Amino acid sequence: MAIQKGKSTLILDNQPSIVASASVVGKKEGEGPCSKNFDMIIDDGYFGETTWEKAESKLQKTAVNLALKKNNLTPNDIDILFAGDLLNQCIGSVYGMRDFKIPFVGLYGACSTMAESLIMASLFIEGGFAKRTCAVTSSHFCSAERQFRFPLEYGCQRTPTAQWTATASGCAILEKHQENKPFVKAVTIGTVADYGINDVNNMGAAMMPAANDTILTFFKDTGHSPEDFDKIVTGDLSAVGSELLIESLKKEGLDISEQHRDCGLMLYDRNTQNVDAGGSGCGCSASVLCSTLLKELYEKQTKNILFIATGALMSPTSLQQGETIPGIAHLLHISI
Amino acid sequence: MAIQKGKSTLILDNQPSIVASASVVGKKEGEGPCSKNFDMIIDDGYFGETTWEKAESKLQKTAVNLALKKNNLTPNDIDILFAGDLLNQCIGSVYGMRDFKIPFVGLYGACSTMAESLIMASLFIEGGFAKRTCAVTSSHFCSAERQFRFPLEYGCQRTPTAQWTATASGCAILEKHQENKPFVKAVTIGTVADYGINDVNNMGAAMMPAANDTILTFFKDTGHSPEDFDKIVTGDLSAVGSELLIESLKKEGLDISEQHRDCGLMLYDRNTQNVDAGGSGCGCSASVLCSTLLKELYEKQTKNILFIATGALMSPTSLQQGETIPGIAHLLHISI
Repeated sequence: MAIQKGKSTLILDNQPSIVASASVVGKKEGEGPCSKNFDMIIDDGYFGETTWEKAESKLQKTAVNLALKKNNLTPNDIDILFAGDLLNQCIGSVYGMRDFKIPFVGLYGACSTMAESLIMASLFIEGGFAKRTCAVTSSHFCSAERQFRFPLEYGCQRTPTAQWTATASGCAILEKHQENKPFVKAVTIGTVADYGINDVNNMGAAMMPAANDTILTFFKDTGHSPEDFDKIVTGDLSAVGSELLIESLKKEGLDISEQHRDCGLMLYDRNTQNVDAGGSGCGCSASVLCSTLLKELYEKQTKNILFIATGALMSPTSLQQGETIPGIAHLLHISI
Repeated sequence: MAIQKGKSTLILDNQPSIVASASVVGKKEGEGPCSKNFDMIIDDGYFGETTWEKAESKLQKTAVNLALKKNNLTPNDIDILFAGDLLNQCIGSVYGMRDFKIPFVGLYGACSTMAESLIMASLFIEGGFAKRTCAVTSSHFCSAERQFRFPLEYGCQRTPTAQWTATASGCAILEKHQENKPFVKAVTIGTVADYGINDVNNMGAAMMPAANDTILTFFKDTGHSPEDFDKIVTGDLSAVGSELLIESLKKEGLDISEQHRDCGLMLYDRNTQNVDAGGSGCGCSASVLCSTLLKELYEKQTKNILFIATGALMSPTSLQQGETIPGIAHLLHISI
C-alpha cells in the first residue's frame, strides 16, 4: 500500500510503470531541440480540420492512438482515461476522447495537467482500481492565444516575458510495475499558490511560487536531496520563472541549479525560434515528457527524475475582474 | 482492496464514510422543496461580492467551511480536496479554494462534478492515499447564463425544455468507514456519450444517453436490480431527460420508474417556480445530495441509493463550430 508522507506526498508501493508514451507536435515544435524524439510532427496547424479547436482534439486523439499502437493495444484495453486541456470546458479532451468509449475522468489543472493526469493514472494502478490507465493532454498555440490573449489577426506585439503556447500533445499509458520500464516511485499533489502576480504575459513568475512550494514539500516529506536526481524538470516556467525558482529555493536552503531543467526551455531554441521567454501550454511539458524525458529513462541515460508540471489557473474573466493569477504544481518521481 | 467489476465499476472494500456535508444555496433554491435541509440560504446573488463569479467562489468556500465546522475541523485537517465547476478554467473552484492551502485536484465534469469529485474523494480514502478528503462544486445562475447563453440584461425568452442553472454549492468530507455514517459502497466511472443532440436549450436530452450508459454498466457489472435501492437519483436530467431515460432503460429491460428521482426536479417546484424543465448546474445535484439525500441516509429513511450526476461537456465555442453535445455520467452507490 502507498505510504502517505505529510499530507500529499505518496510513496508508491506497487510502482506502476509507464509502458508506452507518444507525442504529436506542430511544425515549430518539430524544428526545436527535441525534434528527433517526437512520434509525429504536423505541418499544418489545422491538422486537416476546419478549426484550431478541432485540430487540438485531433492532436490528443492521435497521441492516444500512437501510444496504443506501440503496445499493440486498442482503446478497449484501457480501463480509465484521465485528460484535460486549457480550452473552455476542456473541449480539446472531450471531443478528442469522445470516440474511444473509455471511462473518462476530466481534469482541469491548466499547464499542470500532464502531471495531474499522470498522478491519477498512477494511483489508479497503485490502488488496484484499474489494470491499464491513460493520461493525455494538449495545447494549441492558435486556440490558446485567441482564447486567453488576442486574436492572432490583430498581430499584437509580444513582451519578452511572454511564453509561447506549444502546439502539442503527449500521452502515457500505465500498467503494473514492469522490468526495464520507467515507473512512478512517488508523487506530490500541489496546493494553489498565489503570490499576487497579475501579468498574463508573465506566467512563469505567476507559476513559480507553486513549483517552489511543491518541490519544498516533496524534499521535506521524503528526506531526499537534489543529488538523488539526474534531472529536476519543471514545466513550464521558462526563462523568467526558472531563474526565480532557483533563487527562491536557494533562499530556503535547497540548491537545484545543477539538476534543474524546464520543459519550456527544452522544447524550443530561444536563440533562433522567437519564443520570447520559452514554451508553455499543457502540451509543452506533456510532449517533452512523453518524448525526450521518458526516452532518456527507457535508455537509462537518466535513472531518477522529478517531473513538476506547473499551471496558471486564471481565466480572462478573472483577470478582467481584477484578480491575481493563482498557480499550481504537481510532482512525480519517475525512476527506472 | 477494491474489486474491479468490468472496466469501470469498483466495489469498495473499505467503504469510506461521508462524515459531514454542507450546502449553500441562492434565494430561489431556498424557496424550493428542499428548503429546510440547506445549511445556508443567501438573499443576494452577489453574496456580498462585486461580481457573480466571485460570489460563486464564495459559495464554494462557504460550503467547505460549513462542512468543516460540523465536525470541528480546520482546512489543515483535509489531506486532499477535489473541486471543479462550470466556469471557464474552473475559476469558481480555484479562487474559492485558494486560501485553504489544501492539496488540490482540479476536475472538469460539468454538472457531473459532484459525482466525479465524490468518486475521487472516496477512492483516495479506499486506496489509503489520504486520511480525510473533501469534494466540492458549485454553479451560479447568473455566471452560467451569461457564459453559456445570453447576457441576463438581454431578457431572452426561455424555451420549455430549458433548465434553470442552480445558484448553489455542496461539499462532502470523507474519512475511513464509520458506524452510522453514510458510506460509499461502489462507484462507476462513466464514458463520454454523444447521441448527436445540439440544442443547448435541451441539456436533459443531451445528457440522457450518458446516464443511460452508466446505469446499464453499473447494473450489468454488479448484478443488482433496481429493487435493491430506495432511490435512483439522477442529476440533472429534469423533466425532459428523466422521461427519456426511463423509456430508454425500459427498452434495455431495466425498469427504474419506481425508484427514479432527479435532482433537477427535486430542487425546485416546477409548478410555481418558473424553471421550465427543472434545475441544472454543478450546484444542483451537489446541493440536493449534500442536504436532502444525505440527510435521508443519516436518518435511515433510505438505506441504499444510487447517485448519478450527469454533465453536458460542450462549450459555446464547440457549438458555434457545429459540434454536438457530448455527455457524461458518474455513479455512486451510497449506503448506510
